[in-house]
Amino acid sequence: MNTPDKPHILVCNDDGIEGEGLHVLASSMKKIGRVTVVAPAEPHSGMSHAMTLGVPLRIRKYSRNNRFFGYTVSGTPVDCIKVALSHIMPSKPDLIVSGINYGSNTATNVLYSGTVAAALEGALQGITSLAFSLATYEHADFTFAGKFARRLARKVLTEGLPDDTVLSVNIPNVPESQIAGVVVTEQGRSRWAESAIERNDMYGNPYYWLNGTLTLLDHDIRRDEFAVRDNYVSVTPLSCDLTNHGFIGTLKRWNLQK
Amino acid sequence: MNTPDKPHILVCNDDGIEGEGLHVLASSMKKIGRVTVVAPAEPHSGMSHAMTLGVPLRIRKYSRNNRFFGYTVSGTPVDCIKVALSHIMPSKPDLIVSGINYGSNTATNVLYSGTVAAALEGALQGITSLAFSLATYEHADFTFAGKFARRLARKVLTEGLPDDTVLSVNIPNVPESQIAGVVVTEQGRSRWAESAIERNDMYGNPYYWLNGTLTLLDHDIRRDEFAVRDNYVSVTPLSCDLTNHGFIGTLKRWNLQK
Repeated sequence: MNTPDKPHILVCNDDGIEGEGLHVLASSMKKIGRVTVVAPAEPHSGMSHAMTLGVPLRIRKYSRNNRFFGYTVSGTPVDCIKVALSHIMPSKPDLIVSGINYGSNTATNVLYSGTVAAALEGALQGITSLAFSLATYEHADFTFAGKFARRLARKVLTEGLPDDTVLSVNIPNVPESQIAGVVVTEQGRSRWAESAIERNDMYGNPYYWLNGTLTLLDHDIRRDEFAVRDNYVSVTPLSCDLTNHGFIGTLKRWNLQK
Repeated sequence: MNTPDKPHILVCNDDGIEGEGLHVLASSMKKIGRVTVVAPAEPHSGMSHAMTLGVPLRIRKYSRNNRFFGYTVSGTPVDCIKVALSHIMPSKPDLIVSGINYGSNTATNVLYSGTVAAALEGALQGITSLAFSLATYEHADFTFAGKFARRLARKVLTEGLPDDTVLSVNIPNVPESQIAGVVVTEQGRSRWAESAIERNDMYGNPYYWLNGTLTLLDHDIRRDEFAVRDNYVSVTPLSCDLTNHGFIGTLKRWNLQK
């Protein structure tokens, strides 16, 4: 059934086509628009804005319970957006939603997140885009997150967003009754204390697993991670422009010509 | 020979351990400090801030002309920084330099760049970090770029940089006599017109190569790509904070509680 007056919504994630959060997000969006799902064939956490240049990509149709659900791409979240826009969708979508990620994407982790990168890629292509993450790694309950995603999607479809800007939403993993509210936040500062775990293979040669502990460098409800830990839904506007505009004046006085 | 008063400089790139720009940069830095090279074993262009979570990493020593040159890591540029800091280097370096990349990293491409991401990862770890790119894909002459990198490295070792901020430098591929000057720039806006090239494998199944054409959306010498095309060295301060601070006020008035 063709319903051309409904907005066309592209749904993507970085946890892969089987991610529970993707299915909740797609179901939620189907209540307000026509939905196309394009997601990585495999989980791609921590892939950031990576795109696949060295190997070709495969696109496959994916069914669930004997019904067509969406397309898989054998690459990263950013690959999914690129392939969806250039090859799968007949025209530009009105909205891109990415997620719902399993685990928060706050503070430093914004830079590593494939979920956020997929939304930023949408913004770079001139499409209103949102990223959603649920702040837990266990016992995930996406119910309220799916509902909030729909509410925010409706809002941005009306209001729009500035150029090259997305909203990244982090949602506490609690029932709706325990949500303290919704706050607009800034990306917090944090630092990973890195440690590479060393092991030996069967030949006695060492290999390493990246590992680390996250330390927050600010403690303020105006910052994303702190807000979500306090049971607030955190909504952070993120830009594709990384320029530190505040430092340009100082830098000009460095007199770099010499 | 131990020279503890010299700054310790970590050199990385995204083109891989054999990249010519890496060798020029390492040679240049050896004139002002003790140098440790840690680079990807293979080229990793377009890997952005990706890190390797699903497979373990290998670290290997790499020699050139029978002399130890540095370490390779079987992962991304960001992996290299993490492994270098957590496992290879006995203490934090005073400076991280990334590059010299083969090809400019300006405008939209800042988000895809592994060269820039390696520097941003350094900044996240509290280390003064610089990224260098040579604006060409053929007939690269890294001579002036190496010299300018050393001049800027000296400067930042004295002046320092703000928290979570790096300098990304794009250098025209012309002889020093043709360099028009050095300008402090902002990240420009651009858009990739995507096209996925479709081919068939020997079984008749389609596969796709990402492809695209870059269009600049601003034409102003204060922007990185435009400056470098006009033969200026472009120095852009980039931040790990992606927050669109200018949009926060408007977003608060959206009244997201309802």
